Amino acid sequence: MPDFLARVEVRLKPTVNDPQGNTVAQALGSLGFDEVDSVRVGKLIEVKLSADSERAARDQATEMGKQLLANPVIEQFNVQIEAV
Amino acid sequence: MPDFLARVEVRLKPTVNDPQGNTVAQALGSLGFDEVDSVRVGKLIEVKLSADSERAARDQATEMGKQLLANPVIEQFNVQIEAV
Repeated sequence: MPDFLARVEVRLKPTVNDPQGNTVAQALGSLGFDEVDSVRVGKLIEVKLSADSERAARDQATEMGKQLLANPVIEQFNVQIEAV
Repeated sequence: MPDFLARVEVRLKPTVNDPQGNTVAQALGSLGFDEVDSVRVGKLIEVKLSADSERAARDQATEMGKQLLANPVIEQFNVQIEAV
């Protein structure tokens, strides 16, 4: 089976407070980056997997996001697939 | 000044061991995702900032990556800019 790289981007939902992002924003301000408005910190999970087709790889990665990679209460995710 | 969104992707260098990614890979295997070869976990840092131009926004975000967002000993990063 061909190999694919699934990039799963996991972000906090826009309505959820992001203390880590706020801390980074403050730190950037302290370093002199005055133009920073806000910062959000998410996860970038790259899964190398085998699948019959790009479609199958996308379905697998979406299922992984639902079951494990993202917390549906506070997070949302999207999947990008590339052949490798 | 126009607003930009800088997406800074921070990844462990390929030669650096990723225990978090390995744990995710094992967990996916336990859930029945037998097609998973390997997993790497990185950070996706989205910085909203003001800048005179896309080029200026990119330069700012690159400097942020160097100074704060990535640990150059074990991590590498790239920057994507979009106008918002």
